[in-house]
Amino acid sequence: MADAAVSRIGLAGLAVMGQNLALNIAEKGFPISVYNRSTNKVDDTVERAKDEGELPLTGYYDPKEFVMSIQKPRSVIILVKAGAPVDQTIATLSSYMEPGDCIIDGGNEWYENTERRAEQAAAKGLLYLGMGVSGGEEGARRGPSLMPGGTPEAYSYIEDVVAKVAAQVDDGPCVTYVGPGGSGNFVKMIHNGIEYGDMQLISEAYDVLKTVGGLTNQELQETFEEWNKGELDSFLIEITADIFSVKDDKGEGELVDKILDKTGMKGTGKWTVQQAAELSVAAPTIAASLDSRFLSGLKEERVAAAEIFAQYGLSDVIAAQNIDKKQLVDDVRKALYASKICSYAQGMNLIKAKSLEKGWNLNLGELARIWKGGCIIRASFLDRIKQAYDRNDKLASLLVDPEFAKEMVSRQAAWRRVVGLAIEAGISTPGMSTSLAYFDTYRRGRLPANLVQAQRDYFGAHTYERVDMDGAYHTDWFKIAKSTKAGLRVHV
Amino acid sequence: MADAAVSRIGLAGLAVMGQNLALNIAEKGFPISVYNRSTNKVDDTVERAKDEGELPLTGYYDPKEFVMSIQKPRSVIILVKAGAPVDQTIATLSSYMEPGDCIIDGGNEWYENTERRAEQAAAKGLLYLGMGVSGGEEGARRGPSLMPGGTPEAYSYIEDVVAKVAAQVDDGPCVTYVGPGGSGNFVKMIHNGIEYGDMQLISEAYDVLKTVGGLTNQELQETFEEWNKGELDSFLIEITADIFSVKDDKGEGELVDKILDKTGMKGTGKWTVQQAAELSVAAPTIAASLDSRFLSGLKEERVAAAEIFAQYGLSDVIAAQNIDKKQLVDDVRKALYASKICSYAQGMNLIKAKSLEKGWNLNLGELARIWKGGCIIRASFLDRIKQAYDRNDKLASLLVDPEFAKEMVSRQAAWRRVVGLAIEAGISTPGMSTSLAYFDTYRRGRLPANLVQAQRDYFGAHTYERVDMDGAYHTDWFKIAKSTKAGLRVHV
Repeated sequence: MADAAVSRIGLAGLAVMGQNLALNIAEKGFPISVYNRSTNKVDDTVERAKDEGELPLTGYYDPKEFVMSIQKPRSVIILVKAGAPVDQTIATLSSYMEPGDCIIDGGNEWYENTERRAEQAAAKGLLYLGMGVSGGEEGARRGPSLMPGGTPEAYSYIEDVVAKVAAQVDDGPCVTYVGPGGSGNFVKMIHNGIEYGDMQLISEAYDVLKTVGGLTNQELQETFEEWNKGELDSFLIEITADIFSVKDDKGEGELVDKILDKTGMKGTGKWTVQQAAELSVAAPTIAASLDSRFLSGLKEERVAAAEIFAQYGLSDVIAAQNIDKKQLVDDVRKALYASKICSYAQGMNLIKAKSLEKGWNLNLGELARIWKGGCIIRASFLDRIKQAYDRNDKLASLLVDPEFAKEMVSRQAAWRRVVGLAIEAGISTPGMSTSLAYFDTYRRGRLPANLVQAQRDYFGAHTYERVDMDGAYHTDWFKIAKSTKAGLRVHV
Repeated sequence: MADAAVSRIGLAGLAVMGQNLALNIAEKGFPISVYNRSTNKVDDTVERAKDEGELPLTGYYDPKEFVMSIQKPRSVIILVKAGAPVDQTIATLSSYMEPGDCIIDGGNEWYENTERRAEQAAAKGLLYLGMGVSGGEEGARRGPSLMPGGTPEAYSYIEDVVAKVAAQVDDGPCVTYVGPGGSGNFVKMIHNGIEYGDMQLISEAYDVLKTVGGLTNQELQETFEEWNKGELDSFLIEITADIFSVKDDKGEGELVDKILDKTGMKGTGKWTVQQAAELSVAAPTIAASLDSRFLSGLKEERVAAAEIFAQYGLSDVIAAQNIDKKQLVDDVRKALYASKICSYAQGMNLIKAKSLEKGWNLNLGELARIWKGGCIIRASFLDRIKQAYDRNDKLASLLVDPEFAKEMVSRQAAWRRVVGLAIEAGISTPGMSTSLAYFDTYRRGRLPANLVQAQRDYFGAHTYERVDMDGAYHTDWFKIAKSTKAGLRVHV
């Protein structure tokens, strides 16, 4: 154990993400103290710090010694499971911390929990940040995308550290002061919602290419590798290409075909969908990805349903005809890209709506920038989003940015072909088809919602507005309709 | 003002719904006391009771006199705005109520508020019911569908009253003891979510027939009137037919064309979508109807977007070709019906999931039965749902009931044609297309979720299961993929 007050920063919670982030910080030249409730994780981390180049990392078994070892004002990053473990860890550590010290929660926390804890911390004179961390294990070790939110003063404590620890892209480190309150956690939550959408859309592209187009795993690998050189260039497309190349070590063929089609999930996708409803913002692509995970989980029910429908003459997949593979690959690429634009438009609009509601004053272009590297959704595409907000920071939707609008128009015919083909083939593309419906709804000056308003006024006297004059109106539809009909009957 | 303790029941909150329900109760022969904070509503109600046949209704300006006028154990229905007004009304009235008396909240209340209030009431020895009331003004007066939930004893207080007040259908009154706790409110919330779905699907049918098929309002009126004689027979189809017949009293043509396409909403649709996410149940048709309301509200943004896309060569509606009107009408009817089955399957599964979570032991067939009359979604279709649950009360989904499954199979080709046609025409049918995606996902034994699991294991070590052996597995995808590639490069 080392002398007191030797470390620039502390980190508590040494599961893989915590270990990796601590090693990353140490590697960037910032002496770090680490602590974990179960001591073997402390030993593991110290061992790794030694093995990975005698990094300036010191382990503590005792929370008091841990806190005392950090230079004042102290900055302590917490990386434990969201919810009660965060409260417990804060309770343990804060009893040794002093006014002016700062707690930084790096977990996937619900933003309101962060706001509650920030208030509790403030009552003790402590500063607080909720910092979204994306990039998985690898990102944490090599350079994640960091989304810290809270009091600006707290950010100034760690700015030099996070600027070096974060992934580096052409226009700087993938970190910024996101905004006040729980905005850092909120933005990370939306990032994860977008990640759900990307993964769903890619899985649909895979399904159409494989099931309708008949592509082999090798062809799929080549297709995704090719796509990764163009507009779809991104981490998720890259790893998808990789996945198709991995052989099954327990049998014939590729491993991907042996994986059970049941998808797990954590809380952030669910929260994103619930927040969308709360904010009155449509986010159907993200919602479709969540629903697909729910339905994937009903494996036994689905297998049973497939058998029942087969009995009644409807097979699982309806054979599609006359597929030009090359054309299909090109169309699916365009459908995927156009759907992705819709999904990101939804995510950015969720952030905008929340920022307005809470007065956070978030900078959408800057958020797109810090997602350019380090995180799971990192992609060259994010630079285009940044540019769109640089052109117009009041943009109503990414869809109407001139560059994106042109891209949508030049891809929409292919997109319609892909969704139409999937519908004919009886396979679902919930993410792509709901994205297309979103696009076609958003770009329509006149929707059939007039009928819904008429219905609501008919049965509930909810009133309606008119297209040609101001005011709220109510009509006794029943009386007029029935008297019209009675009148007609008299005349007949 | 009348003598004390003359009334069988009391009702507080005399907006239109409350007035109408009170008059309905009085008309069925149950002397009723009514109260409202603003006294003119009391006078209005007393006046109406006189005008509508000297009904046994007595008005009170004073809450104490109101409570005292009701026979013990007292049953008091509250019909005020959900939220704080309910708490205020309860506070006012309960100070005069005695142990054994019962409060019945008839509003669209969040079920957890009902559970909280039931606990508070119990502390004072009062019983409590949260009772969903559907049917709009007309239903409240002539016979609504009632969904009371809470302690069974409280239900026994009002059973004779509600059995006569509710709408009457072939197999009894449209009321039942729903279940314990907030189950009555929860079931009413889902009813409203389903109502959102129905209205959205009808508006899409209207849009396709009008915009793609070129039907006039008169043809639409005739089509919906015809549909109302068959499998779609329902209140909402009936009023839709009526709506197309109403002329604009301020200009040329039909009123429906002059109504602004911005849709209002209240809380229940939003809650339904949020609960679906909470319960891990996919309810995309209901969610699409909520999203469509959100997007309808962005009228100015949509008009601007339409102009921007027109500039880039994509018109609002892409002309569709070769439409056989008769075939289209027939296809749209089938698409609407099949989509409706999906929507109800989602709604019933939400109730089932919540019932399991809360131990409410709800009877799905009985709930379908009490929706057969009185309420906004009343339809002959609901009898088919009741029968499905009578056949098998453990049904995994309405979709796999043998009767519904056959209906889906015989309508799916038409459904695919309609959605495909709409996609070609550039108009969105979010409810129908998401219902189709739901159907095609649910009836598929093997989904592309295997790829999503591979991705999650690649970047987050989340592990995966296999189709051919038990256990959770993790693969170092990166290492294997890169070494494979390196190997290939060496050989090339």
